[in-house]
Amino acid sequence: MTDEQTALIALDWGTSSLRAFRMSRAGRVLETRASAHGIQHLPEPGVPGFEAAFAAICGDWLEAAPVPVVAGGMVGSAQGWCEVPYLRCPAPIDALPGAAARVRAANGHEILLAPGLLFDPEGGTPDVMRGEEIQIAGAIAGRADWQAAATLVLPGTHSKWAQVADNTVTGFATYMTGEIFAVMRGHSILGRLMTDDPVPDEARAAAFAQGVALASEAGPGDLTRQLFSTRTLGLTGKLPGGALADYCSGLLIGHEIVSGLAAHGDGPVILVGSAELCRRYATALHQLSGRDPAARIENPAPAGLFRLACDAGLISPDTGVHP
Amino acid sequence: MTDEQTALIALDWGTSSLRAFRMSRAGRVLETRASAHGIQHLPEPGVPGFEAAFAAICGDWLEAAPVPVVAGGMVGSAQGWCEVPYLRCPAPIDALPGAAARVRAANGHEILLAPGLLFDPEGGTPDVMRGEEIQIAGAIAGRADWQAAATLVLPGTHSKWAQVADNTVTGFATYMTGEIFAVMRGHSILGRLMTDDPVPDEARAAAFAQGVALASEAGPGDLTRQLFSTRTLGLTGKLPGGALADYCSGLLIGHEIVSGLAAHGDGPVILVGSAELCRRYATALHQLSGRDPAARIENPAPAGLFRLACDAGLISPDTGVHP
Repeated sequence: MTDEQTALIALDWGTSSLRAFRMSRAGRVLETRASAHGIQHLPEPGVPGFEAAFAAICGDWLEAAPVPVVAGGMVGSAQGWCEVPYLRCPAPIDALPGAAARVRAANGHEILLAPGLLFDPEGGTPDVMRGEEIQIAGAIAGRADWQAAATLVLPGTHSKWAQVADNTVTGFATYMTGEIFAVMRGHSILGRLMTDDPVPDEARAAAFAQGVALASEAGPGDLTRQLFSTRTLGLTGKLPGGALADYCSGLLIGHEIVSGLAAHGDGPVILVGSAELCRRYATALHQLSGRDPAARIENPAPAGLFRLACDAGLISPDTGVHP
Repeated sequence: MTDEQTALIALDWGTSSLRAFRMSRAGRVLETRASAHGIQHLPEPGVPGFEAAFAAICGDWLEAAPVPVVAGGMVGSAQGWCEVPYLRCPAPIDALPGAAARVRAANGHEILLAPGLLFDPEGGTPDVMRGEEIQIAGAIAGRADWQAAATLVLPGTHSKWAQVADNTVTGFATYMTGEIFAVMRGHSILGRLMTDDPVPDEARAAAFAQGVALASEAGPGDLTRQLFSTRTLGLTGKLPGGALADYCSGLLIGHEIVSGLAAHGDGPVILVGSAELCRRYATALHQLSGRDPAARIENPAPAGLFRLACDAGLISPDTGVHP
């Protein structure tokens, strides 16, 4: 088998989308496919829906090469194909395979489903992730310095801030930043003054920075008051309607970073997510702390799934050292 | 004219409802009417809609006794019958009539429309209210001690915390507590686990107190993280679905009170609003600070509109002292 032959099929199976990666023994992605068959958008309900989505996205790959299959994300949730209990923090990355579950598809292929993580500290409130642990595993793979100590920030609908030490996720926190922005824009009075009127890029960037600056002045409990300024700055003509969404985004991202740095301030900060979102977070991080992220990584899910497969003994990676 | 004759018609004209009060020269409410003709629910659009709603709710009263008419609330907004510019803070209560506007209805009757208030401190963000200034005027009418110094808290969709000193509204802040609760419950993932399952009153009260307690531990920026616990406490079975709304309510009200007390902590706290909402705020206030409100006032709008009419010289109040 050469490096370029199919050695693993890795599935990143979330709520709204399903992504499949055909990978080599060296961990290289040979081919990528995506479908809209997230667990809430299956072709039919229940297990038959999972079977159909699975066969549709990679049935031909498996027919050509019956390699191991691994999957991460909401596919392992209570609404997924098979519920995989959360692994508790502190969670060593190499303990993920031991907490994974196996499901056998109708076409005979077995899939290894990654567990999510639970962080439930004594005297605190519980927190959960499902899918991000794979991205974290991928982001720090091959980076001994980050495995030793790093803060991983995964912006999004439900942003995650995770602390890694000694190749172990020691704890994490979820911020509802993206979802709050979306529901306030779509369903609250704040959205009424937000327009799509064209505004120069510099004015939008300035509005974002103004929101971040207000966040830096926040005391405990101030967010629900500060949010109202998204309306009053529009009402009083101090910000144009086309820049109000940027202002609100800066305010919410700013709050997340202020809180996140207070809890996870040590070590390098690694941003994981879409380029545009990471750019916003990097800008706000710099404005609030003078720091820059140690790295921005767009999609470490394939690397994380590859590592899961290796740690599970499903494949032996090609280290590139040939005798 | 005896005290019990009609001397004033007062309108509390908000976004979703219109209330009319037929009042005596002593400031007593002789009759109350309510209609659904708030400014966003008029029988027809624009000025004809205001005319029709006005005639429907109190046309017969005015035919029987052509007395002065005053109105407060969103009727004076940009979407109202006639826009009345905001009066800037610091705003003496007795300066409200001077900033009011007059509109003449088709039936010949003139209506005095109260202004809203604008608080736009140097180096801060602007804030506005429209209608609450009338409630404040009514709440402190006849109370020299509160006119000297008090904090008025008006819980609701957009809660207001107003500072009164020397019979002047010196400043205020709006908290989007009620609206954030509603949109998170109705449109975010948090609402999915909230059920109407019956839960004992004590368990609901305990969940509310747990939310307030978490708010007391918040550092700057922590709200968007703490909100997610509404989901995880349900997911992990630590709170029943029927108590999650109370938990989320306690968390959001707690954040508002923590922030409000930090900015407006001095003097007596007067709660103005519905009995049920004031009860929640009083409970949280006590839990967070050991303090109790100096008073709970359900609806001081008629008293505030009466005071506006007196200060405007539209009526001379019956002081009860007859020569």
